Amino acid sequence: MIDYLTLKHWHFEPLERTYGPHDAMLYGLGIGYGADPLDQDDLRFVYEKELRVSPTFANVLGYPGFWAKDPRTGIDWVKLLHGEQTLRIHRPLPKAATVVGQSRVARLIDKGEGKGALLLIERTIVDKTSGELLATVEQLNFLRGDGGFSASGQPSDDPIASPPPMPERAPDVICDLPTRAETALIYRLSGDDNPLHADPSVARAAGFERPILHGLATYAVAGRAVLKHACESDPARLALLHTRFTAPVYPGETIRTELWIDGSTVRFRARSLERDVIVLNSGTAELRATGD
Amino acid sequence: MIDYLTLKHWHFEPLERTYGPHDAMLYGLGIGYGADPLDQDDLRFVYEKELRVSPTFANVLGYPGFWAKDPRTGIDWVKLLHGEQTLRIHRPLPKAATVVGQSRVARLIDKGEGKGALLLIERTIVDKTSGELLATVEQLNFLRGDGGFSASGQPSDDPIASPPPMPERAPDVICDLPTRAETALIYRLSGDDNPLHADPSVARAAGFERPILHGLATYAVAGRAVLKHACESDPARLALLHTRFTAPVYPGETIRTELWIDGSTVRFRARSLERDVIVLNSGTAELRATGD
Repeated sequence: MIDYLTLKHWHFEPLERTYGPHDAMLYGLGIGYGADPLDQDDLRFVYEKELRVSPTFANVLGYPGFWAKDPRTGIDWVKLLHGEQTLRIHRPLPKAATVVGQSRVARLIDKGEGKGALLLIERTIVDKTSGELLATVEQLNFLRGDGGFSASGQPSDDPIASPPPMPERAPDVICDLPTRAETALIYRLSGDDNPLHADPSVARAAGFERPILHGLATYAVAGRAVLKHACESDPARLALLHTRFTAPVYPGETIRTELWIDGSTVRFRARSLERDVIVLNSGTAELRATGD
Repeated sequence: MIDYLTLKHWHFEPLERTYGPHDAMLYGLGIGYGADPLDQDDLRFVYEKELRVSPTFANVLGYPGFWAKDPRTGIDWVKLLHGEQTLRIHRPLPKAATVVGQSRVARLIDKGEGKGALLLIERTIVDKTSGELLATVEQLNFLRGDGGFSASGQPSDDPIASPPPMPERAPDVICDLPTRAETALIYRLSGDDNPLHADPSVARAAGFERPILHGLATYAVAGRAVLKHACESDPARLALLHTRFTAPVYPGETIRTELWIDGSTVRFRARSLERDVIVLNSGTAELRATGD
């Protein structure tokens, strides 16, 4: 059983991470850059000459791992689902830096007995040398087994606003990007080594026919589509990337991202092309003008 | 112009390298393991649970890089070709270690004016903690522009014995292993960052239509075929792996390795399946009995 105050005031140690171009390139390969090695824009995310750092690399920096498994949280972690992810990019990630990730529980919302709870974790990523805030990462977890805690008089935070409905018109751009059978094995080397994404027996125990792709890798592939078609592949143009996870991707599937571009706002969703299943929905990206 | 004594006594600094499971897995991905992530034998080379370290990982440990570009060597380095590679594995590589690579010029052989010279570099790889010799790497370079130096009275070392002819019978095993368009981009993160394997303009300047795969990645893929079909995927079974490079592979091509297995000796060659070009020839592997 969740205790609101215990969880709300959960103490996260600051996590320091030093990375360099090698790490940024490995991350780029883990989200599928390089599959067309003659694409000069894509190549820059995986080759040290004129290297660009993928904005979504922030998702793996200072990541506290699966802390919810700690029994003191009271969370029924087997029923936890990663529901949504929001990345706010304040400054483009340097090619090399020492950063500090500091997580906190931002909101804990009771949906009611049998309906679960929402747990919003916010993480700031600060450049240790300059002290500048580089990115803010928000991970919204759906605690399917932990609803009803407020019935006993405990507090519950304000609900999270739903994203606006998706445009009804046909998408402005459709972008198909392949993943490989081994993409999850590459992605996990960037710092998310949950065996669900590598070990067939763990995947089967979790109810999947085989290891699934990391949700944040799928998210990053959709981020590539946004960068490519709305930002001229310039990471400095991306200010925010938000989406809701709706289904897993199996490594090797093609991720089709549909984009609706309205000025500085992009809406998007993504599907597994092979299974015609929506895997990300209600996506929003916010763009900066060049040189902001 | 080569000066025999200068080159023969070339001083190589010992090169220390600390690696761990992450590096061994990244190397495994760079030689194409993981393309069938449900193959349990293959998975062990790219997943930390019951990790196996690819024997050919030794090729990138303590590697001195392209030192022949140093003008003091006298080598016409633009005409240098990597001709052959021999790896002797004395002990299986640990999952984590600090190793010291010490290179030396083992032989320098004049083939005659207009015929080039052969330069054999030997590198020992020693476990720094235990002092044990783990592997010996021999790289034979063909210096196409440096023949004839002995005509002026300089010494020349004994020739290198040619490998025995390949068996005339049909191969006992044919093993097709895919590479990916991005394989060279992954492989180079293990420590061979020659831009020839990443930069389209550098590749074109060298006369290739696009970046080629590292010869040592091709060699390692053939080594995978030997391990899989003659060693039950057990790195402890492989004692020696030798081959001659005959043509480059383009990333994305399938490497077909043909194997002739006679007791503890395996002969092999490999081709690009798509272009039907022999890429490795005169290959020999020597095996150990299990538990040796």
